[in-house]
Amino acid sequence: MPEAQRQRTTAAPDLISRYAATRRLSEALVEPLSEADATIQSMPDASPAKWHLAHTTWFFETFLLRDRLPSYRLFDDRWPFLFNSYYEGEGERILRPRRGMLSRPTLREILDWRVHVDESMQALLGDTAHASLIELGIAHEQQHQELLLTDIKHALFQNPLGPAMWTAPLTETIAAEALPDWYEHPGGIALIGQGDGGFAFDNEGPPHRVLLEPFGLAGKLVTNGDWQAFIDDGGYRAASLWLSDGWDWVRREQIGAPLYWKDGEHFTHAGWQPRPSEAPVCHISYYEADAFASWAGARLPTEFEWEAIGQSHDPSGGNQFDTAAPPLPTGSAGLFGDCWQFTRSAYLPYPRFAPAEGAVGEYNGKFMAGQWVLKGASCATVRGHSRASYRNFFYPQQRWQFTGLRLAKDL
Amino acid sequence: MPEAQRQRTTAAPDLISRYAATRRLSEALVEPLSEADATIQSMPDASPAKWHLAHTTWFFETFLLRDRLPSYRLFDDRWPFLFNSYYEGEGERILRPRRGMLSRPTLREILDWRVHVDESMQALLGDTAHASLIELGIAHEQQHQELLLTDIKHALFQNPLGPAMWTAPLTETIAAEALPDWYEHPGGIALIGQGDGGFAFDNEGPPHRVLLEPFGLAGKLVTNGDWQAFIDDGGYRAASLWLSDGWDWVRREQIGAPLYWKDGEHFTHAGWQPRPSEAPVCHISYYEADAFASWAGARLPTEFEWEAIGQSHDPSGGNQFDTAAPPLPTGSAGLFGDCWQFTRSAYLPYPRFAPAEGAVGEYNGKFMAGQWVLKGASCATVRGHSRASYRNFFYPQQRWQFTGLRLAKDL
Amino acid sequence: MPEAQRQRTTAAPDLISRYAATRRLSEALVEPLSEADATIQSMPDASPAKWHLAHTTWFFETFLLRDRLPSYRLFDDRWPFLFNSYYEGEGERILRPRRGMLSRPTLREILDWRVHVDESMQALLGDTAHASLIELGIAHEQQHQELLLTDIKHALFQNPLGPAMWTAPLTETIAAEALPDWYEHPGGIALIGQGDGGFAFDNEGPPHRVLLEPFGLAGKLVTNGDWQAFIDDGGYRAASLWLSDGWDWVRREQIGAPLYWKDGEHFTHAGWQPRPSEAPVCHISYYEADAFASWAGARLPTEFEWEAIGQSHDPSGGNQFDTAAPPLPTGSAGLFGDCWQFTRSAYLPYPRFAPAEGAVGEYNGKFMAGQWVLKGASCATVRGHSRASYRNFFYPQQRWQFTGLRLAKDL
Amino acid sequence: MPEAQRQRTTAAPDLISRYAATRRLSEALVEPLSEADATIQSMPDASPAKWHLAHTTWFFETFLLRDRLPSYRLFDDRWPFLFNSYYEGEGERILRPRRGMLSRPTLREILDWRVHVDESMQALLGDTAHASLIELGIAHEQQHQELLLTDIKHALFQNPLGPAMWTAPLTETIAAEALPDWYEHPGGIALIGQGDGGFAFDNEGPPHRVLLEPFGLAGKLVTNGDWQAFIDDGGYRAASLWLSDGWDWVRREQIGAPLYWKDGEHFTHAGWQPRPSEAPVCHISYYEADAFASWAGARLPTEFEWEAIGQSHDPSGGNQFDTAAPPLPTGSAGLFGDCWQFTRSAYLPYPRFAPAEGAVGEYNGKFMAGQWVLKGASCATVRGHSRASYRNFFYPQQRWQFTGLRLAKDL
Repeated sequence: MPEAQRQRTTAAPDLISRYAATRRLSEALVEPLSEADATIQSMPDASPAKWHLAHTTWFFETFLLRDRLPSYRLFDDRWPFLFNSYYEGEGERILRPRRGMLSRPTLREILDWRVHVDESMQALLGDTAHASLIELGIAHEQQHQELLLTDIKHALFQNPLGPAMWTAPLTETIAAEALPDWYEHPGGIALIGQGDGGFAFDNEGPPHRVLLEPFGLAGKLVTNGDWQAFIDDGGYRAASLWLSDGWDWVRREQIGAPLYWKDGEHFTHAGWQPRPSEAPVCHISYYEADAFASWAGARLPTEFEWEAIGQSHDPSGGNQFDTAAPPLPTGSAGLFGDCWQFTRSAYLPYPRFAPAEGAVGEYNGKFMAGQWVLKGASCATVRGHSRASYRNFFYPQQRWQFTGLRLAKDL
Repeated sequence: MPEAQRQRTTAAPDLISRYAATRRLSEALVEPLSEADATIQSMPDASPAKWHLAHTTWFFETFLLRDRLPSYRLFDDRWPFLFNSYYEGEGERILRPRRGMLSRPTLREILDWRVHVDESMQALLGDTAHASLIELGIAHEQQHQELLLTDIKHALFQNPLGPAMWTAPLTETIAAEALPDWYEHPGGIALIGQGDGGFAFDNEGPPHRVLLEPFGLAGKLVTNGDWQAFIDDGGYRAASLWLSDGWDWVRREQIGAPLYWKDGEHFTHAGWQPRPSEAPVCHISYYEADAFASWAGARLPTEFEWEAIGQSHDPSGGNQFDTAAPPLPTGSAGLFGDCWQFTRSAYLPYPRFAPAEGAVGEYNGKFMAGQWVLKGASCATVRGHSRASYRNFFYPQQRWQFTGLRLAKDL
Repeated sequence: MPEAQRQRTTAAPDLISRYAATRRLSEALVEPLSEADATIQSMPDASPAKWHLAHTTWFFETFLLRDRLPSYRLFDDRWPFLFNSYYEGEGERILRPRRGMLSRPTLREILDWRVHVDESMQALLGDTAHASLIELGIAHEQQHQELLLTDIKHALFQNPLGPAMWTAPLTETIAAEALPDWYEHPGGIALIGQGDGGFAFDNEGPPHRVLLEPFGLAGKLVTNGDWQAFIDDGGYRAASLWLSDGWDWVRREQIGAPLYWKDGEHFTHAGWQPRPSEAPVCHISYYEADAFASWAGARLPTEFEWEAIGQSHDPSGGNQFDTAAPPLPTGSAGLFGDCWQFTRSAYLPYPRFAPAEGAVGEYNGKFMAGQWVLKGASCATVRGHSRASYRNFFYPQQRWQFTGLRLAKDL
Repeated sequence: MPEAQRQRTTAAPDLISRYAATRRLSEALVEPLSEADATIQSMPDASPAKWHLAHTTWFFETFLLRDRLPSYRLFDDRWPFLFNSYYEGEGERILRPRRGMLSRPTLREILDWRVHVDESMQALLGDTAHASLIELGIAHEQQHQELLLTDIKHALFQNPLGPAMWTAPLTETIAAEALPDWYEHPGGIALIGQGDGGFAFDNEGPPHRVLLEPFGLAGKLVTNGDWQAFIDDGGYRAASLWLSDGWDWVRREQIGAPLYWKDGEHFTHAGWQPRPSEAPVCHISYYEADAFASWAGARLPTEFEWEAIGQSHDPSGGNQFDTAAPPLPTGSAGLFGDCWQFTRSAYLPYPRFAPAEGAVGEYNGKFMAGQWVLKGASCATVRGHSRASYRNFFYPQQRWQFTGLRLAKDL
């Protein structure tokens, strides 16, 4: 398998423990869920919790065990059809909107499969020949941990009973006093993209130079209180603030607030909770972020501006994955945490980007149309998964992720 | 509450045992299902198994306990919103296509609710003042037992694994030799509708006279083998055989066989099974039934013709509800069993029909548009629920019920 | 060609003059229209005026000239693809929703085609062997004259300018004083359907007996004033009055008044005009008619009840087609006129009905699903086209025809 | 009105003659059309020819005459509702998909309106205070001339008769021998956007610097013959070549060739014509362009790369608008002509871009989401309307414009 990511010198012992901790975390996340909670699918964009457990296992079974461990036999040869997500190179698969029909295999059977795969993986974990692909599998599972959390939140939200899976919501940090009003940048040539050091996805490279004009990036995220002011000022009724597609969306979907807002509350993993006005606003679409920025007389940053600032706050050194930490991811204040931050950059390939050969090459490149780059991380992002070069991406109307915004301005 | 049905002299002891047996049967039907199986919803027409358990309980809680037992307190006052089906008079309710989002309450909680309601119902079961409404509740639950079976069959069918809930399918009886080729009727005035004797739904009356021409009704149902001949003769490609709306449906949905057919098999509650050619064809739409009849040089019977013949084979005497019987309903050969039989009669009110006052009046009358009457019973109809005057009804494109056909001809 | 209708002893001279008058009337109807007016299509249900001119000509060219006049050559062999409506037996055709794309052939070319076909038809008009098929062609063109008028009304209504094609609307007669409050019928066996005498469509037979209960049929149509009272009383907001499908339709389409109503006006062929409160209400759906009847404590008549009364007022004798009359059809007061009247009868085949062989057999039978019978005639029905046995039919949500209602009651 | 474009020192005499010539050209374009041709609308993306004539006139009437000529009275105060396109600041307007319902006003009335507006405009044309807004109006009308040509082509294509409006298609030039295989660029900082000199739209600025890597841009456009090779090699069936959204589109819409292809022909303004294999391929979507580039082992250029090459071939000097030229626009070979060329750049604002105040500010900025930049010009672009900084933009699935592609590669 060609490299779908750039990987240097992974110490095997660390890899083994991180593999184990990642796998354990996925299982911990579904512990509060019933078999039924883990099976339902609230919309085509979201997947059942059980499916995430299975799909991440399918990834290791397919690209590691099947392809690289000759003695391995598939746990069940009908399951790849069920748990392949979008890899055309891996053949046909169940239609995405029908993932919620999979009451079988049961949660128990999938957990058994996980044990089986984990045991089989021991034969490969120590061999550095596989390290970069295992890193990719770990990073892939970390992404699905965040998706699992946002998908189950959306599923529980459908229920008029407003059920909780935890006793407290994921922390949405109230910005500390110490943050500057603006991070300022003098412009000039910046080096963008992951070039050396740790793991990165293929879409974060190749590293390349970008010319920036002088700009400022807000030190704090836009808050619920700021957003309420936008609403109170008629923001959702003022066509002039909106992109044309956004305005159509607002009227067609009758949008008047972020997703999960109702009166003074918002829906969380702990059910309906009071909505702190100082906390970062979350669960907004790109259209809303752009309209807010217009209303505020500011703009969204480009992904390059964000990254140029973010590089000096990169958490990938100090914010190491903590294998002894409690299972809940927790957001950290600052650039990396709370919620993903929309940029005004469309999700496009970097210069000289080329997808890897084979099915793993489908990981990122084929989604480079119609989506927008988000930077940073959210309260649902697993510790150790964040870095300045990270490029998250979603369609402009999607809101079920922990998405917020940070303003920018020209200097 | 006015009478939504006509009820005579129910012996209370019998009612008590039939109530208990009916409630027990519902629970027995879900025993092979996991929490997840019982939660998923495969399409807006179908409901989760768990929802059927709850909705039938809501019926007794609402129309009997809440309305007639002053001391009764709702088990959970948020649940009526979840488990009201379509009774506008009972207020708002969850949108039908979202019933599959109810991972909570759990199956266990719903079973506890059933126990609670059943215990509370003891105070009303012995009082003849409530007998007719309790009869309606029993008949209502019997209908949902059949729906539960057809809905879960459809749900399991979505799963590429083809899971089974039983070890054997519901029997689709191979017609006995003794059945006549044709039941013949000399025409004249027939008395249609339920007039005296046992329970009937409001749509089965008032009894009234209908003038019939001489006709014949086939003694046997059309079989899988007959249907294969229709397919082999190009039946699904010959526009001239089809109603205009039917032909549009065939092309739009790319229909080429009954629902649940694949190669030589069909999907059953016992998973994929060989498809006996002598068994009645099942899971066809009205459009298909009508096209087949055209192809066969015959026609479908009217509901009045069918009932005129059916009256002399009415099972409502001998085919009593058997409280000691095993939980599976079983189809009986002859007019009542195997599968519901499409008539060429639109589902319309009988002369002088008037719905009952109040929410229970919404039981039947408001559906009298765009649907077709089916007569008889199916292999999934609970014993004791069949009679000659029974009017089942579905839209012309629906196929997930056990629907088949019996030909008719002019004499 | 087998008989798609029952036809007796047509005097050829009369046929010749009626053919000429019918063809002339179609052309007169489009005289006030521009080339563009005659080309546009406002919805899939409606056709361009130009298309009606062409399709009725295609009927004569295909079934008379092509099939029965050996020397005839098609005027343009690409046009049958454009102007066949729904006759599967006549091959592929342009999709119905795309009829409005036919800016070519021009109106002038189609009028030239009409001349050509009319001249060629002279060779067949005098031969009694073709009389019944020519009668069908005339009746067919008369139906399209009414459709042309309702379709162009709907097209002009789309235009915010509210354009007029005439200086006065089609008369909506204010019911004369002489009409009885109720036509009463004692019940008993009635003979339904066309049996002898003049022309009838195949769906009006075979004649057969129907058993009626005693009933009354209102002497007057429901008026705009009556309808306003229904609105004022919350008729469109009271779920209990509506069929279930009707209630869904009201909410989905946000229906709150008949089509073409706005404030105190309604849209007519003469543009926006004051809406007389004594005039019959028009442009309502079956769902609305049924809800109104429920609100009024009455019901709709069956088609058989209507016909039993209508037989003694049949206009097909006295109300002869007047070849010297001005081009506008005019409605007559009484049972036949003003607007078509919904019955509670689904549009189904009469006993022993069999469609004719060949493409002409597609005229009526294949539409016998999901539609409702309307009786009488409207202000847009051509004189001479009305009779008691006539069965018009539309889907329950359609409103662009001149559709109203007459109440009935049990005696 | 603030400047929605950057305009320098327009000599009024030139403006007067260019205004007149532009207005005359629009009218010449519809001369071959009938009233009906000019009225129909083939899809929501396209507008009727008559509507283009009216909308461009509405622009001058609204933003010049109404706003700047105090004595002016609207020709018809109901028409702004009909002919405003998307300017929210100018109030409500007819829904875009219903533009094809406007059989009135007639073509004649709209031509009369044009005369009236042109006469009234004489009072403003000589005053340099209005010059930049008049320039915008001219450029706006030139854009609509191209849209008129692509929209009417699409409308005539709907007609199974394949009608022609001209005797010859718009020339699709066969690339001259003299073109290089590749234009090569050494990389470095390029100045992008319109900075001085003639007219430009607001989205072409502000001028700014972009850092380029070394690259090559193909000297010739991809041809019909190249595209046929792509098809023959299974290009439309190979998922691995496609963006994920593109692959969904191919399967959902059953795409297998460029729009307007059938067998060896393609549809043109002169009807169905043989398809020259050496001519540039045209009427492809972004998805197709991207898939072709993948198949060819190349990529699409960025808009900045294209512009960096295009600046040294800018036609805005020599290719002056020729007021004496025949009405048909003609494509020129080379970078500017034949067909618009997809770039891999999403349509986004340039740094420090800010839309103008007021309704004219809605011209470009609000469309900066989900669309792609195309560079160059097409055979339907009016002479004098092309320049290197021009940014055309469409959604990735749209194909009815003259859209093609030119490959790029890294050096």
